[in-house]
Amino acid sequence: MTETPHPLYDRHADTLNRALTAITERGYWSAYPESPSPRVYGETAAADGKAAFEAYLNGDFPLDQPSADRVATETSPFGLELNVRYPHAGADELVAAASAALPAWRDAGPQVRVGVCLEILDRLHKHIFELANAVQFTSGQAFVMAFQAGGAHALDRALEALAYAYAEMTRHPRTAEWEKAAGKGDPLRMTKTFHVVPRGVALVIGCNTFPTWNSYPGLFASLVTGNPVVVKPHPRAVLPLAITVRYAREVLAEAGFDPNLMLLAPEAPGEKLASTLALHPAVKIVDFTGSTEYGDWLEANARQAAVYTEKAGLNTVVVDSTDDFAGMCRNLGFTLTLYSGQMCTTSQNILIPAGGIETDQGHKSFDEVAGGIAAVVGKLTADPARGVELTGAIVNDGVLERLDEVTKVGEPVLESRTVEHPALPGAVVRTPTIVKLAADDTATYGREWFGPISFAIATDSTTHSLEIMRTTVGEKGALTAAVYSTDEAVLDAAEAAAVDVGVHLSCNLTGGVFVNQSAAFSDFHGSGANPAANAALTDGAYVANRFRIVQSRRHG
Amino acid sequence: MTETPHPLYDRHADTLNRALTAITERGYWSAYPESPSPRVYGETAAADGKAAFEAYLNGDFPLDQPSADRVATETSPFGLELNVRYPHAGADELVAAASAALPAWRDAGPQVRVGVCLEILDRLHKHIFELANAVQFTSGQAFVMAFQAGGAHALDRALEALAYAYAEMTRHPRTAEWEKAAGKGDPLRMTKTFHVVPRGVALVIGCNTFPTWNSYPGLFASLVTGNPVVVKPHPRAVLPLAITVRYAREVLAEAGFDPNLMLLAPEAPGEKLASTLALHPAVKIVDFTGSTEYGDWLEANARQAAVYTEKAGLNTVVVDSTDDFAGMCRNLGFTLTLYSGQMCTTSQNILIPAGGIETDQGHKSFDEVAGGIAAVVGKLTADPARGVELTGAIVNDGVLERLDEVTKVGEPVLESRTVEHPALPGAVVRTPTIVKLAADDTATYGREWFGPISFAIATDSTTHSLEIMRTTVGEKGALTAAVYSTDEAVLDAAEAAAVDVGVHLSCNLTGGVFVNQSAAFSDFHGSGANPAANAALTDGAYVANRFRIVQSRRHG
Repeated sequence: MTETPHPLYDRHADTLNRALTAITERGYWSAYPESPSPRVYGETAAADGKAAFEAYLNGDFPLDQPSADRVATETSPFGLELNVRYPHAGADELVAAASAALPAWRDAGPQVRVGVCLEILDRLHKHIFELANAVQFTSGQAFVMAFQAGGAHALDRALEALAYAYAEMTRHPRTAEWEKAAGKGDPLRMTKTFHVVPRGVALVIGCNTFPTWNSYPGLFASLVTGNPVVVKPHPRAVLPLAITVRYAREVLAEAGFDPNLMLLAPEAPGEKLASTLALHPAVKIVDFTGSTEYGDWLEANARQAAVYTEKAGLNTVVVDSTDDFAGMCRNLGFTLTLYSGQMCTTSQNILIPAGGIETDQGHKSFDEVAGGIAAVVGKLTADPARGVELTGAIVNDGVLERLDEVTKVGEPVLESRTVEHPALPGAVVRTPTIVKLAADDTATYGREWFGPISFAIATDSTTHSLEIMRTTVGEKGALTAAVYSTDEAVLDAAEAAAVDVGVHLSCNLTGGVFVNQSAAFSDFHGSGANPAANAALTDGAYVANRFRIVQSRRHG
Repeated sequence: MTETPHPLYDRHADTLNRALTAITERGYWSAYPESPSPRVYGETAAADGKAAFEAYLNGDFPLDQPSADRVATETSPFGLELNVRYPHAGADELVAAASAALPAWRDAGPQVRVGVCLEILDRLHKHIFELANAVQFTSGQAFVMAFQAGGAHALDRALEALAYAYAEMTRHPRTAEWEKAAGKGDPLRMTKTFHVVPRGVALVIGCNTFPTWNSYPGLFASLVTGNPVVVKPHPRAVLPLAITVRYAREVLAEAGFDPNLMLLAPEAPGEKLASTLALHPAVKIVDFTGSTEYGDWLEANARQAAVYTEKAGLNTVVVDSTDDFAGMCRNLGFTLTLYSGQMCTTSQNILIPAGGIETDQGHKSFDEVAGGIAAVVGKLTADPARGVELTGAIVNDGVLERLDEVTKVGEPVLESRTVEHPALPGAVVRTPTIVKLAADDTATYGREWFGPISFAIATDSTTHSLEIMRTTVGEKGALTAAVYSTDEAVLDAAEAAAVDVGVHLSCNLTGGVFVNQSAAFSDFHGSGANPAANAALTDGAYVANRFRIVQSRRHG
């Protein structure tokens, strides 16, 4: 029952070992270069990737998996007609195919599985430009962001998940000799074998905005621990996960495994395939990113499964004081502009004392603080050609409806503008709005306004701001919080509040690190300690319950 | 924010480090001697412990915790009047007191907490005879078993849980320096702090049969990860956990912490305090051992909490062949006799080919196999004075009712007898029964008959036996399975079936290791991979989600 060395494990052992070190150090490390520069990826990589992406359009996506018919459900925020037709099958058919693939994958053991999974990452990395184009045109992200968040960083997060899962699977030996003294007789001796067994079929439910980044950790954590994975993409962002499944199946088959270890599960309009799959008795793990309402439904109803959810929250900034007013405004303004605020980590509620704050530029009134941030957004989006490379496009009509609705709730510090994309005339582009609110308007800022919508909220004091942060994040959750202060006591109070309500805190970001960005292998994404998510990407708790240990013991 | 060395950590660091090694090796190790011999524990230890136990009887239990009145709910299976009166409080009062104790305990950090928890174990170990008497007279276990399972082994399991939890809390550094190159400018630098934060108040719901052994792992895993613990004992087995809470509070207070970090929550008859506590919004972790019905209710309803349950199952033995017929019968007969089969790990369904089996004593018919096991039980229980030291007493009337009911379902191979306890005339003692069933009588053997009740089930063949094991364990779960065979192919088939249905398997036990016993630091108890339990005691998954990581980052 010892594992034989596997060529794919050998090929990637150095990467795995480096990742295993990185997760114990939590300093800076990355395996996949985030620059799309030709100096890194070669002169033809970008064009090749774009061509590969375009070859998928208006055609049958190449996936040889069980299917009854085909579906095409994508509409690009950039106005492009995708019309990619995906093989479509019912829940029972998908789960049956996945279940049949399980035993051989389970019995291959952790080392073979991690080798195959690392090869899948490597294969996806070879197709990173193709992936980036798919992420761009389904999510509405601008290209560079799609390349980084949807490509390199997603692969880093996947590798991080593999490392945690491999560490967890191998923390116990495969066999152990147990010998206990037994009075004057021979000692008792047992040989014990500890089998790592998967829970069953895993379901990954993807989101529209980050189809790869948010799906990869759960997907690879489940796969490497032995669970076949059914990937249910968002109907508007199928292609990035279809490409993922395509290359994963290619590698699985090459390695001699049933490619049905990974299956794409696109759905027809109104089919509710995610819910059918999530309640299937053979589905034992569900990973989901999306709305609070659906995440709560999954947690309440998919009781046969371990359910990992990332939902909505009220990301908060407490502005107390700063010794770099310009840097603070630049940093926050960039955060609000990036992907037009359509990140689960983008700040929504900016809490500023009504009486203003002290800065390196002297006292700044509430309006000057809000206006300083707004001015940066305005500047970053003034030129359409440069602006759209930051904002990208609006992911769906729900965002447009909220942009309309928010004009009625308060006085704008900055109004949202419609921008004509210079190269893609069908693109739906909007710039961020910032709306002034009073501290007692919790009915407005106490719920999530997903999209390019933030609130400058006038509080009585920083103490009041911290109280609001405790209340709103405690009740509704948050993925990020930030504080700006020159006073160590305020920073400590903010950190104490963040610990109490379980939200990650960034302090005095004025440079090239932004509150809405987290670095794989160093930053945890989500805490699992507030209502915005019941788990973090990625830590021990995220992987440890994706498999179980079943032991067998015999007298030695 | 660095941790200062703590004298309690220093005092117990060697024990902790040895335990940390043991959980990576899973060989034999034990920290607490299991022999109650005066050579180990001293000449007066037994008498002192008995006297300490007796001093609790007919009195107010010494606990200085919030309370409104007192309750006394225990009736000993040995007929002793306990009449110990415990302080009694409502759920809100208990949870409020526990919550108030949380912040300082959280902020003390993992090293201080593990030091305090190890000191609690040490303190409990000093009172092991007192504990053993309390376990004996509430559970009905005979003294030696109460000393071992309820004392030494419970402490070993607690230490095992502390080791896993400490490893998990300290796998990441407390702080990390992150430095990322940023083009031609200065690199980006951040200092990151990773706070280990508890989930909230933890609830432990104890059982009647193993009040300490089944409660300690969850109790100490929750406490060491920063969660105050409310201990809700079974109304018939309060004293062992009251003693536990007493000494834990003593140590917590000596170490400068709020003793309300551990609170006893005894309930008045019909109060349903466990359910009220389990649904309390501040209760974020629930550990439970007991019925499938209540465990399922907790999993479905205590949705604000992480719920760990050990429930009922159909422990199964597949008898195919043996080269030590006498040893097999001795081993199984002892398993059925120990604590009159009232262990969650005792075998219930013994699957034997109707045509008999091959043995070192030649062919044995079905009746000879069943009779061989029955003969051992008969011999072990023939002498009342020696028998009661194995069987102990019957834990509650439900067991007596099932013993009555089972006389109607099939032909007895061995009838249960009522035994007069030679020293304790009020003790309720019954010997095990074994009942013959046909393989198609799944209506009978397909449910759990907790108590001294086993079935000898006639199957078509070993292949048929393995099918039954797959079906029954797959549907209803099991904590243990065993196989007897001289054929490697049968052992492998049994192991494959065990892996498929997720049950721990013991092969060819004929000596001093029994299927109903598991060794801390080596055997996993429960797999979490079948319906009998949703978690194992103890592994990474059991501890990792009892705390969360909340990070703070600042520019360095």
